[in-house]
Amino acid sequence: LDDAFVCHLGFLRDGQPTVLPTLYARDGDVRYLHGAPANAALRSAEAATAACVAVTLVDGLVLARSAFHHSVNYRSVVAFGTAGEVTDFAEQERALLAIVDYVVPGRPRDSRPPSPEELRATRVTRFEIEEASAKVRTGGPNEEPADLELTSFWAGVLPLRVVLGTPVPDERGRPLPPVPA
Amino acid sequence: LDDAFVCHLGFLRDGQPTVLPTLYARDGDVRYLHGAPANAALRSAEAATAACVAVTLVDGLVLARSAFHHSVNYRSVVAFGTAGEVTDFAEQERALLAIVDYVVPGRPRDSRPPSPEELRATRVTRFEIEEASAKVRTGGPNEEPADLELTSFWAGVLPLRVVLGTPVPDERGRPLPPVPA
Repeated sequence: LDDAFVCHLGFLRDGQPTVLPTLYARDGDVRYLHGAPANAALRSAEAATAACVAVTLVDGLVLARSAFHHSVNYRSVVAFGTAGEVTDFAEQERALLAIVDYVVPGRPRDSRPPSPEELRATRVTRFEIEEASAKVRTGGPNEEPADLELTSFWAGVLPLRVVLGTPVPDERGRPLPPVPA
Repeated sequence: LDDAFVCHLGFLRDGQPTVLPTLYARDGDVRYLHGAPANAALRSAEAATAACVAVTLVDGLVLARSAFHHSVNYRSVVAFGTAGEVTDFAEQERALLAIVDYVVPGRPRDSRPPSPEELRATRVTRFEIEEASAKVRTGGPNEEPADLELTSFWAGVLPLRVVLGTPVPDERGRPLPPVPA
């Protein structure tokens, strides 16, 4: 969970299973989500008796000699639990800064803290993880033994990773300090 | 949709909203998913009257001068529809090769085609998109006008992209041909 920052929240809205992407931060067995006060997804998740949050990281494409055994290397967590609105002001502020810190470590120190008005303009949802399952695939392709005799098809793993590009500074306002570490 | 290959499928299983990651391929308004014949997620989605599939790509981290206006640049599609098992053998084969081709373009030509036994050992689910919404965020941070006067906080966008690493060949079996284009 701590290697990612986007999750997919699943909940029932008017009887319709719905999945939406959102940012999160983990604090022990709690995951914090946030949005506008009227955010329909968060409100529906809070109103439901159960919700689900999935996080998936893709680490590589697994190319087998056979089309059948193609696969993906990944790390995935699916967590079930219940959601509720955070109404305590201190917990709300801590959760919001935790989300910022989760996406860009150290960033709460490198930005203006939220004002009381900004905190009031944000809904924080507390998702208590009650049960979770993790699935991980690593390594090379599975193959049928006979396929190992084939010589016309390349087989192996294409690693995938996410990289940061060159920072694009905001051109408005006063001159910016250097990009923080 | 065509820039991604992993989706998050949301469905109801025993009254519990459930979200699972899976590969897909799009063909017009249809998305094909696949798994083992007994795959509980696909069977639950097929049995339900409605399902949801979300696809999300993160393009950058948006760093504002204020913690409050931090954001993420992304492209997201949330599609609602109904799922059903593909029983036609030709459609099943076409869908499976489409999924392989979606993840690694051209790969169906560069691997051994599925045998009838392998096709029977795979469940293909046809997800008909009935309604979909797309959300896209691009560009720099929003800021409160007063925050543009601040000089102590860097602001801008950190672009994120997925890159391929060096291919890792499968060391088993006969010597491999060169990595295909």
